Amino acid sequence: MSRGRAVNACCVRWAVRGLASRRAWRIPKVAGAMAPLGEGSDDPVLPDLPRGPLHAARARASFPWKELALFWEGPDMLRFKKNIFSALENDPLFAHPPGSLSLEKYRELTFLRCKRVFEYDFLRVEDLLGSPLRVLALIQCLGMYDWSLATKFFLHTLTFGSAIYSSGSERHFKYLPKIFTMEIFGCFALTEVSHGSNTKAMRTTAHYDPTTEELIIHSPDFEAAKFWVGNLGKTATHAVVFAQLYTPGGQCHGLHPFVVQIRDPKTLLPMPGVMVGDIGRKLGQNGLDNGFAMFHKVRIPRQDLLNRSGDITPEGTYVTHVKDARQHFSESLGSLSSGRVAIAGMSVVNLKLAVSIALRFSATRRQFGPTDEEEVPVLEYPMQQWRLLPYLAAAYALDHFSKSLFLDLVELQQGLLGKDRSARQAELGREIHALASAGKPLASWTAQRGIQECREACGGHGYLAMNRLGDLRDDNDPNCTYEGDNSVLLQQTSNYLLGLLVRRDQGGARIESPLKTVDFLEAYPNLLGHRFEGSSPEDCLDSSVPLAAYEWLVCYLLRESYQKLNQEKQSGSNDFEARNNCQVRVCFKGCFSNDSLLIPAPSCPW
Amino acid sequence: MSRGRAVNACCVRWAVRGLASRRAWRIPKVAGAMAPLGEGSDDPVLPDLPRGPLHAARARASFPWKELALFWEGPDMLRFKKNIFSALENDPLFAHPPGSLSLEKYRELTFLRCKRVFEYDFLRVEDLLGSPLRVLALIQCLGMYDWSLATKFFLHTLTFGSAIYSSGSERHFKYLPKIFTMEIFGCFALTEVSHGSNTKAMRTTAHYDPTTEELIIHSPDFEAAKFWVGNLGKTATHAVVFAQLYTPGGQCHGLHPFVVQIRDPKTLLPMPGVMVGDIGRKLGQNGLDNGFAMFHKVRIPRQDLLNRSGDITPEGTYVTHVKDARQHFSESLGSLSSGRVAIAGMSVVNLKLAVSIALRFSATRRQFGPTDEEEVPVLEYPMQQWRLLPYLAAAYALDHFSKSLFLDLVELQQGLLGKDRSARQAELGREIHALASAGKPLASWTAQRGIQECREACGGHGYLAMNRLGDLRDDNDPNCTYEGDNSVLLQQTSNYLLGLLVRRDQGGARIESPLKTVDFLEAYPNLLGHRFEGSSPEDCLDSSVPLAAYEWLVCYLLRESYQKLNQEKQSGSNDFEARNNCQVRVCFKGCFSNDSLLIPAPSCPW
Repeated sequence: MSRGRAVNACCVRWAVRGLASRRAWRIPKVAGAMAPLGEGSDDPVLPDLPRGPLHAARARASFPWKELALFWEGPDMLRFKKNIFSALENDPLFAHPPGSLSLEKYRELTFLRCKRVFEYDFLRVEDLLGSPLRVLALIQCLGMYDWSLATKFFLHTLTFGSAIYSSGSERHFKYLPKIFTMEIFGCFALTEVSHGSNTKAMRTTAHYDPTTEELIIHSPDFEAAKFWVGNLGKTATHAVVFAQLYTPGGQCHGLHPFVVQIRDPKTLLPMPGVMVGDIGRKLGQNGLDNGFAMFHKVRIPRQDLLNRSGDITPEGTYVTHVKDARQHFSESLGSLSSGRVAIAGMSVVNLKLAVSIALRFSATRRQFGPTDEEEVPVLEYPMQQWRLLPYLAAAYALDHFSKSLFLDLVELQQGLLGKDRSARQAELGREIHALASAGKPLASWTAQRGIQECREACGGHGYLAMNRLGDLRDDNDPNCTYEGDNSVLLQQTSNYLLGLLVRRDQGGARIESPLKTVDFLEAYPNLLGHRFEGSSPEDCLDSSVPLAAYEWLVCYLLRESYQKLNQEKQSGSNDFEARNNCQVRVCFKGCFSNDSLLIPAPSCPW
Repeated sequence: MSRGRAVNACCVRWAVRGLASRRAWRIPKVAGAMAPLGEGSDDPVLPDLPRGPLHAARARASFPWKELALFWEGPDMLRFKKNIFSALENDPLFAHPPGSLSLEKYRELTFLRCKRVFEYDFLRVEDLLGSPLRVLALIQCLGMYDWSLATKFFLHTLTFGSAIYSSGSERHFKYLPKIFTMEIFGCFALTEVSHGSNTKAMRTTAHYDPTTEELIIHSPDFEAAKFWVGNLGKTATHAVVFAQLYTPGGQCHGLHPFVVQIRDPKTLLPMPGVMVGDIGRKLGQNGLDNGFAMFHKVRIPRQDLLNRSGDITPEGTYVTHVKDARQHFSESLGSLSSGRVAIAGMSVVNLKLAVSIALRFSATRRQFGPTDEEEVPVLEYPMQQWRLLPYLAAAYALDHFSKSLFLDLVELQQGLLGKDRSARQAELGREIHALASAGKPLASWTAQRGIQECREACGGHGYLAMNRLGDLRDDNDPNCTYEGDNSVLLQQTSNYLLGLLVRRDQGGARIESPLKTVDFLEAYPNLLGHRFEGSSPEDCLDSSVPLAAYEWLVCYLLRESYQKLNQEKQSGSNDFEARNNCQVRVCFKGCFSNDSLLIPAPSCPW
């Protein structure tokens, strides 16, 4: 599934430049002026909440909610978000229509809304420079409204646009202004019917014909059809298509990106040789038109090869600055991480929404009580608190985690911009890749389970579509899959951790990393001698106690995995077999799937 | 949510009698003749599977699948199911239309299909007598096709019909033939907007007016509106409405069922004083029209009180044979259990479907391999097996469990039919109630998580609506809620277990039960001295090892809960507070939510 390549390589760098150049075309600015943020109750950014059924519960809070909001977001970010929400609230195009929309109508409406979001000019360059988190915040605000819109907008601007900017060169910059005027509409076509995770095995081909200086894009069969591509179903006029590049003589140079025109921008009719269509209803995000495409010997100019990592001379010679696969992999880590970091943040939004709905319902829904006359809000029941409050805590923890990881990513991207080739930069890339590969599964699975728990905790009313928990679950679900299936991704983190052990065992290297997230492993395996010290629930409230348990658990699982891997290799398994036979241990799925890292079961004896 | 009262009190008893009398009206029989079941490959009931992409995986099976099917279902049940599937397959009304249906169209089509199911006469009295499991099998076969249809059919026949038969008396049997001709169409209206779990707090009233010998059905306000009622949205002409019965002078006699006409059967227009409508889109089962109704002083004849547990004389005197609340509760246990047992079986069907889809996909989907040329079916990866195979095993275990519990329930119902008032009969009622109250959560949660795991294990393709995993998840979801929220239900089982301990501690009673499911607790608390004996994975393959661990765990949690409950009471909490403050411990949610009873994580160190 390609749709999740939401914030692609160098998105910040590109956004800054792209938006800067965009100012020149004077797209009308619709967003209203922002009022200053004060402390009074008539503050336009944090107005008092209206009195209603929730008032009693809110009045019992032990802290002032406005101070928490200010502490958590800061006044600038609060204003930025309020500005977006106000614009959408006041625009009839964004009103939720009564009843349900047909698939066709919903997709059409999402396209119109996407166009309108461009006109609002929410992301201003002068703001962005001081606060790169605004990129993430804009995705999240649009997603809070509707993920179909958020993904449609970002697939076109950040994913398609960023791919052209960061994988191409100056000869491709002609496309960029057309992106901002929506003169062309883009998509990112990597996934094929039969290949998603295994990108190397993609089968679309691009043969170079030196006689016409053209590349011939071709799908050998149905299994090689591009599939799942967001925006391709109905609206994309152009795609960044990944294909195996062949030079005359038949040599294959691996997967490369090409700009391919899919439809006529005036009529939206397919270009000759392109068979394109909508893949139909999905479990969620149905405002987004995911599509398929097959190419029958479609000819494009040589110049439409996005040539950052490799190019073809007019005569048909392949030229590249990339020395080997290792360098190629290292350079692509940042690109892989950015999508995953964005998805972690998107998942947090869904968890926040679900927990808010469920807690508000629980504070007003009454059922049973000490007497027949007096019923108690269900939120007062310890069982309901136990079901919901850990997810509220998780929303805060993961919100902080996803933002700080995003800022680390910005640092990494700035290093790439500055052509930093230091060991620290390379190590930072690996560490962030490992964090993003575990953080995305943690956030998306926690959100998926949290939404389901919220649905159930709201009883029958949680099952009514208008209460949105179904949409949240359905829209969050692909976060577990795109940009790497969660179970597969976890193996990348465990491979990183095992690699640290191997490097220490084989060369005596210290275990340390730029963000210091793995430094505690320097105490491996001695940490395994530590014993759990807590003897009461109160002891466990000291965060050092669960943290020590977490460190022990990581060491334990690492030791088990390391031993199993070595055993497999000694018994003659090749690398592929050895990894497969211990992958269940290697990755921490056992822990994640039991939520035990995040949400301990209060009655568990261990 | 009322829709889940799918197989109500005495469903078998009623079905036998109802269907017997139905023979007299000669509804045309559409179902084809059944051929004998042979062993050959051209057997019409178990034909060979067509050769296709799955052939290679199937050819590697270590057992003959036809023998397993025969062993598991028996030839008669296989024929019965085949007969239903063939009828639906060959009838254009049941063809799945291309594209998606509007809500209105889907509900209309489900009504037409429901009517057609009546014409098929699948359940024959002569078969049913020898095999009561056919009731469950018919629900499940229709549900395999579409749960909206299955629930619509059974809410009308078994739930509405059974409520009239088992809660009413001979004066109400006039309604029964009209049910089978669909001259009237019924629903079961218990749940209100503000009350589901707490049935005692329902607020619809029925005041008796002796001057006209009528009952006045009234909804005091919106919160008392009947809500979630399946079939009520568009199609029900009659409802069994639960309301607080008041006699002249203002005395309330508690909740009683009444037959109330909702719509004109010819025009489907609401009757005077009835405000009725559809509650709108739900997360799933959208072919079923769940509805709401408010009554403004609607008058019905005195005779339409369903008078099995209490009646009113023409003068307005309340008469009843029920001695006290305890007897009333005891008599209603069978009714509560039957819905939950049915839901356990329905959940298993969803799990079976999801696991079949995911395993078949995994056997044909190839990704990565030992060399670039050779890709491996993803089912060959230990990780994929670890994700899916425990759910395959759970489907078999839960299928057997739900069927055997259903047969135990039939034994209980037969005892009620024969007016068995023995201590064993009462104890059997309590035991089945406890099993059903834990079995429904176990089955529905396992199915819910299993479907989600299957969805994710199929990657992007699992997110495409046509692959059905979304519908299965959405249609299974309410199984976690109706007939009692799973978390609330578990407390009923734990209360039963705690009650056994209390009875032994206070009166020295042996811990034993008719089905012997709790007899092992006689060894409590000595069992807690047992230690885990397994030292290798092989040891754990001996089923006595996990069984001993399960027994230890139940004892451990019981002891913790019992101690906590006693502490709470000693510290001055009343019963309501004491139960609330230890409910998280009391119920086994901690275990269920970690799947640890069912699906151990292979890498867990404990």
